[in-house]
Amino acid sequence: MATQRIIDFLNTRRLNGPCLVVDLDVVRENYIGFEKALPDSRIFYAVKANPAPEILRLLASLGSSFDTASVTEIEMALDAGAPAERISYGNTIKKERDIARAFELGIRLFAVDSVEEVEKVARAAPGARVFCRVLTDGEGAEWPLSRKFGCVPAMAVDVLRRAKSLGLNAHGVSFHVGSQQTDLSAWDRALGDARGVFAALAEEGITLKMVNMGGGFPTRYLRDVPTAQAYGRAIFDALRKHFGNRIPETIVEPGRGMVGNAGVIKTEVVLVSKKADNDNVRWVYLDIGKFGGLAETMDEAIRYQIVTPRDGDRTEPCILAGPTCDSADVMYEKTPYPLPVSLTIGDELLIEGTGAYTTTYASVAFNGFEPLRSYVI
Amino acid sequence: MATQRIIDFLNTRRLNGPCLVVDLDVVRENYIGFEKALPDSRIFYAVKANPAPEILRLLASLGSSFDTASVTEIEMALDAGAPAERISYGNTIKKERDIARAFELGIRLFAVDSVEEVEKVARAAPGARVFCRVLTDGEGAEWPLSRKFGCVPAMAVDVLRRAKSLGLNAHGVSFHVGSQQTDLSAWDRALGDARGVFAALAEEGITLKMVNMGGGFPTRYLRDVPTAQAYGRAIFDALRKHFGNRIPETIVEPGRGMVGNAGVIKTEVVLVSKKADNDNVRWVYLDIGKFGGLAETMDEAIRYQIVTPRDGDRTEPCILAGPTCDSADVMYEKTPYPLPVSLTIGDELLIEGTGAYTTTYASVAFNGFEPLRSYVI
Repeated sequence: MATQRIIDFLNTRRLNGPCLVVDLDVVRENYIGFEKALPDSRIFYAVKANPAPEILRLLASLGSSFDTASVTEIEMALDAGAPAERISYGNTIKKERDIARAFELGIRLFAVDSVEEVEKVARAAPGARVFCRVLTDGEGAEWPLSRKFGCVPAMAVDVLRRAKSLGLNAHGVSFHVGSQQTDLSAWDRALGDARGVFAALAEEGITLKMVNMGGGFPTRYLRDVPTAQAYGRAIFDALRKHFGNRIPETIVEPGRGMVGNAGVIKTEVVLVSKKADNDNVRWVYLDIGKFGGLAETMDEAIRYQIVTPRDGDRTEPCILAGPTCDSADVMYEKTPYPLPVSLTIGDELLIEGTGAYTTTYASVAFNGFEPLRSYVI
Repeated sequence: MATQRIIDFLNTRRLNGPCLVVDLDVVRENYIGFEKALPDSRIFYAVKANPAPEILRLLASLGSSFDTASVTEIEMALDAGAPAERISYGNTIKKERDIARAFELGIRLFAVDSVEEVEKVARAAPGARVFCRVLTDGEGAEWPLSRKFGCVPAMAVDVLRRAKSLGLNAHGVSFHVGSQQTDLSAWDRALGDARGVFAALAEEGITLKMVNMGGGFPTRYLRDVPTAQAYGRAIFDALRKHFGNRIPETIVEPGRGMVGNAGVIKTEVVLVSKKADNDNVRWVYLDIGKFGGLAETMDEAIRYQIVTPRDGDRTEPCILAGPTCDSADVMYEKTPYPLPVSLTIGDELLIEGTGAYTTTYASVAFNGFEPLRSYVI
């Protein structure tokens, strides 16, 4: 997944230290792929996945909308050329003064998952549209969601009823099937729940108009994942099954699926060693780790594809760790990573599929290491 | 543990957003406490715990030495007024060009735990002193160490022999009993291993001179921990037991024990809600979380003491979560945290014992949230 453009860039620039390189051509292809796969859905790019200004400008120019998590992200999307009506404030946890600031900036679409949050939105963004997030089980996702966001469908009915009574526009329902979701039936189950909320509120004369199907569209790490087309088909079938010929407006929020495979991290082997002569695994230490941008290796959740200059040589299981003095800074230990026995200090590796959830996760200066540098080409 | 100076500072400044406030008076007391408890040991402050320039300047002026993890940290210690001979490069994972840079800056004391690292040091820092880290089992530590650092004692003998043969000064042995270590016998076991390495090399005519006993000195979170005096006594007894009347030079590297209890994070309740009417726990969302500086709540390892303006009211178990759209951004869920039922959106809380391993762990800009601000008073 390191495109020729990325390889040429790295060969020409010979950069020191770890860095991420993102190929905008791949982002463009991904956007067009989502448009084709889901022609009736609006695409809200999840800015948190990678807020690089070049990515936001490209997507804004392609007509994308934006799902944001904070006032800063709203401002970044506006700066990239997106009009306010193409931006949603998708975080269910917002300070009232941040809601007010977003409202001032023209934002009119807000996520909620509790009566308490609805009350804040009603005070700080009168008349705005809100959608309520419902809990899903997240089964089948590699980066499973806890119950942190959303409420049970029965409570979503209460939340949206309350929104309406406070003068807000009870606009719809959202869910998130879990990041890197590879089980296509997850969307079917969640759409069934959404339909239940629509029906309960319709009985009270409240007509919802929108289903926000969130993200979860996977990028290819080590295993093949269904293509965007397969997702599109599965989602369309589920919409038809649950909503018949009254399919609501739909939104999708790809983040990882939009930029994950567009980026590659270049890293260097700092040390290869053993802890005892009779150890059967080697330790390979890189100049990037959990605190330098690879936070998603937490609990070994995401297993990236790694390319070495010695691929093809005999491999041995290795424990892969980062360069800091923190013992938690180990990427793969429970399931060691097979790497060439010939791997040597100074070798440059490529960690593929790292365009999403890397740069902004990096710590400010842990152990004195600078945050991950990023080049968008 | 919020000192009157910290409380007065927060009351006067009325700061918006989460922030850490560190009281230098407490850092000074801690330094003096370590000096009294371990009068024969040199104190190397672990800069990674909190590299705020004010803290480094204070400790440099008190005569402290510094344990650093990177060239950046070395430069910060030098800038704070520490001479190069009071700085060790304590990371066992170093790029050769970083070793060379450290050597240029005057650093002459390096950590190693493999023959491969010794070879780098020999090339880039000829004649320097090295100490080899040995593995300990970390039993009893709240933030247990993996096998990431160190090698078995038998291999340490090989590593130091190799150092000597390459013209380096085979200076000593280091260990780390695990962070926030509360079992005093851990030092005894580790010193026994160190003694074994001394003895094996003595037989070959190589005389080691130093034992670096690392850090691990706990700060008080929720439970009482032995005082510095008790640590000092236990360590002295173990040194006497293993080394008799030939006790080597000793070094300690407190980080958390030096600054942990000197800092308090001020945070605000953003949302209090339930996921279903019949839930028996509430969710409390703060404006700081795992990615904003509380990374050590990973796996709920560190359980901070939290002070609320409603302490004394009836409490209920709460799940405590951060403000980002990341479902992993939950601090305490497996073991919910008892908080007052009366807790309300907008309440300001104090998270105590947060002077160490918070500011620099914070992510650069995850979800658009700025890194943790810090005030050292």
